[in-house]
Amino acid sequence: MKKLTRPIVAAAGAIALSTSIATADVDTDRASIENILSSYETALNTANTDSVVLLYADDGVFMPQNSTPFVGAEAIRAAYDGVFQTIKLDISFTVDEVLQLAPQWALARTRSEGVVTINATGDKAPEANQELFVFQKQEDGDWRIARYIFSTTNPARR
Amino acid sequence: MKKLTRPIVAAAGAIALSTSIATADVDTDRASIENILSSYETALNTANTDSVVLLYADDGVFMPQNSTPFVGAEAIRAAYDGVFQTIKLDISFTVDEVLQLAPQWALARTRSEGVVTINATGDKAPEANQELFVFQKQEDGDWRIARYIFSTTNPARR
Repeated sequence: MKKLTRPIVAAAGAIALSTSIATADVDTDRASIENILSSYETALNTANTDSVVLLYADDGVFMPQNSTPFVGAEAIRAAYDGVFQTIKLDISFTVDEVLQLAPQWALARTRSEGVVTINATGDKAPEANQELFVFQKQEDGDWRIARYIFSTTNPARR
Repeated sequence: MKKLTRPIVAAAGAIALSTSIATADVDTDRASIENILSSYETALNTANTDSVVLLYADDGVFMPQNSTPFVGAEAIRAAYDGVFQTIKLDISFTVDEVLQLAPQWALARTRSEGVVTINATGDKAPEANQELFVFQKQEDGDWRIARYIFSTTNPARR
């Protein structure tokens, strides 16, 4: 996972100044959120549904391209099982932005690039997406994915 | 624009209880955000770039499918000009969720359906997308679109 450190630090600094979230807390929260993004990248590349589901809030929402939204842990689990049965991913995330919105809420904007392999045929194709994550800090202090949507950045097929 | 009133009211109630944002403020903010969504629907259907740009924060980010992100008002204006030169939209939004995250931040999750017409050919096709909006209340008290991404919910073309 690539990190664009300067804008992240700038954003965190701006938050600490403007909303009185202590700087140490912001640093800890940012590290936790970057850790989720890194874990999510690994979970995708290892096709590990259990790991993915652990990163989501119980009432999280997964909004994959070419599907209506999946709401809640059970639906999310079934959705990723379906994805991983169909394709194998080998992708890397670039973090464009991590922005803490409130003590319990943050967003991240990322892009991902790599190769997708269709399991049924072995065909490979370039994969490039952009992602918007909204994270919610849970009552136990862990950050989880609350809302997540992605779309391809490759040109449209006409 | 269709509104699913019950979950919105429930979400607003939960916020008022949990983060001490006064209920009257939540109602006003929710109404403002629903108004942005309605205005955005109208701006898309009338191909009105000026109206769209007024709905975005100056440092907003637009993440359309089949493109890398557009950051800031100037880039967003050029992006919508490009969209409206290429296609004509006749779509309707359904609001699945409006959730206020903090006094200055909120999200909305929507779906949209309708018809897209390719201006160059007149060809029409069914359009169906899902959207995730993040809104930021500006210093003047107006809510604006801070981050916005959509992806098709139609099946993949193989």
